[in-house]
Amino acid sequence: MKYPEFLRKLKRGPQVILPKDFGMIAAFTCVGHESVCVDAGSGSGWLACMLGNICKKAVSYEWREDFAEIARKNAERAGLKNVEVKVKDVFAGIDEQDVDLVVLDLADAEKAVAHAYAALKKGGSLVGYLPHAEQVQKFVAACKESGFKEEEIFTIENMVREMLVRERGFRPDTKGLWHTGYLTFAKK
Amino acid sequence: MKYPEFLRKLKRGPQVILPKDFGMIAAFTCVGHESVCVDAGSGSGWLACMLGNICKKAVSYEWREDFAEIARKNAERAGLKNVEVKVKDVFAGIDEQDVDLVVLDLADAEKAVAHAYAALKKGGSLVGYLPHAEQVQKFVAACKESGFKEEEIFTIENMVREMLVRERGFRPDTKGLWHTGYLTFAKK
Amino acid sequence: MKYPEFLRKLKRGPQVILPKDFGMIAAFTCVGHESVCVDAGSGSGWLACMLGNICKKAVSYEWREDFAEIARKNAERAGLKNVEVKVKDVFAGIDEQDVDLVVLDLADAEKAVAHAYAALKKGGSLVGYLPHAEQVQKFVAACKESGFKEEEIFTIENMVREMLVRERGFRPDTKGLWHTGYLTFAKK
Amino acid sequence: MKYPEFLRKLKRGPQVILPKDFGMIAAFTCVGHESVCVDAGSGSGWLACMLGNICKKAVSYEWREDFAEIARKNAERAGLKNVEVKVKDVFAGIDEQDVDLVVLDLADAEKAVAHAYAALKKGGSLVGYLPHAEQVQKFVAACKESGFKEEEIFTIENMVREMLVRERGFRPDTKGLWHTGYLTFAKK
Repeated sequence: MKYPEFLRKLKRGPQVILPKDFGMIAAFTCVGHESVCVDAGSGSGWLACMLGNICKKAVSYEWREDFAEIARKNAERAGLKNVEVKVKDVFAGIDEQDVDLVVLDLADAEKAVAHAYAALKKGGSLVGYLPHAEQVQKFVAACKESGFKEEEIFTIENMVREMLVRERGFRPDTKGLWHTGYLTFAKK
Repeated sequence: MKYPEFLRKLKRGPQVILPKDFGMIAAFTCVGHESVCVDAGSGSGWLACMLGNICKKAVSYEWREDFAEIARKNAERAGLKNVEVKVKDVFAGIDEQDVDLVVLDLADAEKAVAHAYAALKKGGSLVGYLPHAEQVQKFVAACKESGFKEEEIFTIENMVREMLVRERGFRPDTKGLWHTGYLTFAKK
Repeated sequence: MKYPEFLRKLKRGPQVILPKDFGMIAAFTCVGHESVCVDAGSGSGWLACMLGNICKKAVSYEWREDFAEIARKNAERAGLKNVEVKVKDVFAGIDEQDVDLVVLDLADAEKAVAHAYAALKKGGSLVGYLPHAEQVQKFVAACKESGFKEEEIFTIENMVREMLVRERGFRPDTKGLWHTGYLTFAKK
Repeated sequence: MKYPEFLRKLKRGPQVILPKDFGMIAAFTCVGHESVCVDAGSGSGWLACMLGNICKKAVSYEWREDFAEIARKNAERAGLKNVEVKVKDVFAGIDEQDVDLVVLDLADAEKAVAHAYAALKKGGSLVGYLPHAEQVQKFVAACKESGFKEEEIFTIENMVREMLVRERGFRPDTKGLWHTGYLTFAKK
C-alpha cells in the first residue's frame, strides 16, 4: 500500500487517522464541495487536511499547542487555505454552527457528543473514531441521549489488507494491520 | 449501516460501486477540489456522483444508452452540474487529457489501461475495480506494460462489517458482505 | 462449505457450536486420544460429539431435559459410546476430576469458571465461547480470579469465508458468516 | 495467542502448518479415533503430530531426508507411536489404501491429486493447503478430473486474530497474521 502524493508531503507526528478510515468517513457521510467539517483532536492534522481537500472548510480542535502547530504546518505543506487549526478544548464547546460533519477522535469522546449535536445542522453527521468496544458503547449511549436519531446510528469496522499480485501467484500479504478504530456514525 | 442522504436520492439500477469502495478510491488517491476524474462504465452513476461531489469534474463513460440515462438522472437528483455522462466505449479511447484519476470498473478493464495512461496527467492515478484474482493479474500486467510505475502499483481488499452495539453487548453482526471487488491502484 | 459426513448424521436443534469453532478448540488445546473433556451447555450436543470423536471421553452438561435428549440421540447417531450427557446445572459444580478440557458455552459463563478450575488437571484448558465483548471481559476477569495463569489467557476471533473457485475466476463469496462467538482460552 | 503444551515440545524447522489450519482440517473432515491419515510433505511434522494425536494413524511423506528426520524427532518428542514418516516422493504414489484423509501441502500439489484419490476410501477427504489463488485453481481442476465429487469440493480461507481484553478496553490486536494458505476440501 502506498500513501497518495498528497499525504507524502505531510509530517507524521502524533497519532493520525489513516487513509482507510478517512475513506469510510468520506463515504458514509458524503461530505463534499459545500460542506463545513469540524474534527477534534487534530493530532498531526491529517484528517483535517484530507477533509479540507474535499470540503469547503475544515476546522480542527487541538488543545495542545505543539500538536496544533504540527497540524498547521501540515495544512501549509498541503497548500490548503481552508483548514483552520484552533488551540481549544473541544469539551468546552464548538464555536461553529450549522456544520455538516463533526469527527471526534479522542479519549472520552462521549463527553463532546452534546457539543457536536449543538454544532451540527439538521441532517449533519457525527463520527466517533474509537479503538475499544467499551468506548463505542459509551459513545452510542451519548448519541442517543443527545438527540441523534436512534435508527441512524451505526458502527462499522473496516479491515483493509494488501493483496500480493505476482507472477508466481495472487495471495493476501502474510501479515498486516488488523485494527485501528471502530467508526460510529450518527445523524442529527 | 446506512447510506448517506446523498446516496438515498439516487436510483439503483445496474451494478453500483458501494460507498466503502468509493471511500478507498478517495482515500488512496486523495482527489479533491481541483481534480478531474474519469470513470467507466457508469453503471448507475453512483461513483461518478460521489466523485463529482468532491472533485471539480467527473466524466463517466457508458456505452449502453439506457444505463447512461440512469446515471444522468442520478447526477440530476444529486444536484450535480459537474458530472458528465458520455455514451461512449472506453475501449475506443478517452477524450480527456491531464486528468487526475481514471477508474475502470468493467470486464476486460486491462484493455483500457493504455487509454487511461494516455489520459492521465503525470502523478495521476488509475484504479481498477475487479472481482476476480485473474482479472487483477491481467490488470496489473497491463499497468506495467503501459508505463505505470511498478513500485507504485498495489492491490487492496477492504472488508467492512457492522458492529452491533446494544445494551446486551457489543459484537459484530452475524452475517454480511464479504466481497465486492479488489481495488488496484497505479500511478503515472 | 460442506459439513463433514460425521455432522450430517446429526440433528440440529438448539444452538450448536460450528465446525470452525470446534476446530479452534481442538487446535489450541490439542486434546486427543487420552483426553477427557467436559462441556456445558450441550445444546444439540454437536461439540460433545466432535470432542468424543477425537478424545477418550466427553461429558456434556445440560440442565434442560429436552435438549439433553437431543444431544444423547445425536451421540447415538454418531455411533459414539464415550459421550455422556448429564441433565445437570453446571453452575452447581462439575463432578469430574482431572479433566483436560472444559468448554463453557452458555450465558453467565463466568459463574462456572471456578468450577471449571476445580475440575481441570494441572495444565488443562478452559475455553469460553461467548458472542459479546462484555461477556469476554467478565470471563477473563473470572479466569484471573480463579487462579488461571494470567500469561496464558488469550482471546481469538476466527473468520472463515468461502472462496469461489470457478472457470471465470477466483474470488471470495459475496456474503457470508461474519461472527459466531469469541473464543477465550485459559490454562490451569 | 499461545500454542498448546503439545506443540511447545516440538521443534520448528521447515515450514509448518499452524494450529489454526490444522483446526480447519480436523473440523471439516471430522477425522477421529478410527481414522488413518496421510500428509505430504512433512515439513517439521507438526501436522502429522497433530493428526496422530487425534487419529489412529498418521503417515507423513517427505522426500528430504533431513526434514524427515526433524519430523520423526518431533513425533518422538510428542510421545506418538502412531506417526510414521516416510522418506518418499508423494508424486511417485501413495502406498496406503483406504485412508480417511490425505493432506497435500506442497508446490504442484495438483500432480498428486490422482494418487490421493487412489489412496482414499470412499467418503474419504482430500485437503489441499495452498497459498496462491492460481494453485487453488489448478488443484480444484485436478480434483474434478480425478473423480472427486464436484458438489463436495469447496475452498475456504480462515482468518484468526487476537483480541486484546484489558481493563482499559476490548479491541482486536493492531497487527497480526492475515494469510497462511487457502484450504481446499474434496471428497471421494
